[in-house]
Amino acid sequence: MTAHRLPVTVYWEDTDAGGIVYHGAYLRFAERGRTEMLRDLGIGQADLLARTGLGFVVRRAEIDFDRPARLDDRLEVVTELADLTGARVLMDQRVMPAGRKRALARLRVELAVVDRAGRPRRLPEAITAALQRFHASA
Amino acid sequence: MTAHRLPVTVYWEDTDAGGIVYHGAYLRFAERGRTEMLRDLGIGQADLLARTGLGFVVRRAEIDFDRPARLDDRLEVVTELADLTGARVLMDQRVMPAGRKRALARLRVELAVVDRAGRPRRLPEAITAALQRFHASA
Amino acid sequence: MTAHRLPVTVYWEDTDAGGIVYHGAYLRFAERGRTEMLRDLGIGQADLLARTGLGFVVRRAEIDFDRPARLDDRLEVVTELADLTGARVLMDQRVMPAGRKRALARLRVELAVVDRAGRPRRLPEAITAALQRFHASA
Amino acid sequence: MTAHRLPVTVYWEDTDAGGIVYHGAYLRFAERGRTEMLRDLGIGQADLLARTGLGFVVRRAEIDFDRPARLDDRLEVVTELADLTGARVLMDQRVMPAGRKRALARLRVELAVVDRAGRPRRLPEAITAALQRFHASA
Repeated sequence: MTAHRLPVTVYWEDTDAGGIVYHGAYLRFAERGRTEMLRDLGIGQADLLARTGLGFVVRRAEIDFDRPARLDDRLEVVTELADLTGARVLMDQRVMPAGRKRALARLRVELAVVDRAGRPRRLPEAITAALQRFHASA
Repeated sequence: MTAHRLPVTVYWEDTDAGGIVYHGAYLRFAERGRTEMLRDLGIGQADLLARTGLGFVVRRAEIDFDRPARLDDRLEVVTELADLTGARVLMDQRVMPAGRKRALARLRVELAVVDRAGRPRRLPEAITAALQRFHASA
Repeated sequence: MTAHRLPVTVYWEDTDAGGIVYHGAYLRFAERGRTEMLRDLGIGQADLLARTGLGFVVRRAEIDFDRPARLDDRLEVVTELADLTGARVLMDQRVMPAGRKRALARLRVELAVVDRAGRPRRLPEAITAALQRFHASA
Repeated sequence: MTAHRLPVTVYWEDTDAGGIVYHGAYLRFAERGRTEMLRDLGIGQADLLARTGLGFVVRRAEIDFDRPARLDDRLEVVTELADLTGARVLMDQRVMPAGRKRALARLRVELAVVDRAGRPRRLPEAITAALQRFHASA
């Protein structure tokens, strides 16, 4: 299965007074990874929202914080599609030190698509097709 | 002149690896102070946006960072109206340690009112009047 | 079982271009709730770090995002102790609309105590005792 | 005079319910630009802090917010050294739409160097020399 990889650098804004990356920052890093993975598939979220009124929302997230990252660290967000149904996208993500094999954080994120009123909607066909091609490209 | 005072507590999210409050956090604290000052005058910004399509935007900010704040510190955001014209609101703000007299940070913030397309608009009459009463109540 | 309740207001900083509270903001809200719950038990984290070199870190978090919150919303973070062992604290948290009964977000957060080098440490006795009293006070 | 250029992408985390980039996000973008500019000169801030106990702090910032940025926008942070004395570094920064000439935000940021206790210190010789070379390389 294909994995999308996004380089991320740790800046002061991402750290806290414990001297490490604030735990909440990993949700931001992961969201950047999903955004760039979708963009690579031709799905721009601002464009999607403007054209169709549809947007992805996070329904559920599980995060394991295994090891801390620190200021100036070069990281990599690895994003894989775990499952895909008509209205739900499940992604597995890992935040890694660049060029290393042991994850700092592991996330499982469940996304849904909603309209402007927040009502659940099925994924547009073109998006489902693009995600399936990504999932299948081993 | 009246000053609005809002208590703010420093949490992990506000600090950085230098062990102090991240400099960018003061813009967030100040924005909370302005929001609550406006709310005290009967101006709810979500309501304003929904009813009129108008919103305040920050046009310019000057910030002096005089002394650091730290995790768990109890702060107070002091907000005063410095000047008011048809399309521009100028506010002086200070972030103080609670119950102390020397500011940690001092801000001068210039606000404008814009419509949904981002075009400058005059302040609605009711808002100008409310701000003038606040400014005058010595 | 006792529940700690912390009022939280949604400011611009907490929202995103979808018009709702950014999903990552709930981790910040929850962390404020835990901080104030600990403070109510006499546990100040900056003080704990300075005196003992020990700090709580988040090991794992599960979050269900049930309904969106919006700008100016008044929320309440409800924090309960779910489980407590020598080195691990498990907390259940809910972010509620103030005065309402259906949660916007539900979190299960696992905390550990580490020293300055990041090594796992047992909870100091005084903290365990304080948490147990909180847990038992039904 | 040389200018350092850092590409920055706008993610959901950077936007607010007004549909544009939150004003406070520009301080984060600018800080990333200064960090990478320093790194290009061989100055790593985490390394500097670990070896010497010294760190840069922001003493003053002036920001003009000229035009809004939006979700998915590709930006560029342009950083120039405006002035340099023994204890103070003045930087001019602009946040531009990538490949365009009119700034979205313009910042003047004054930095100082402090030790772990927050006391002002002179810039280490090697840093002053590196900054002067950067400033002179026209």
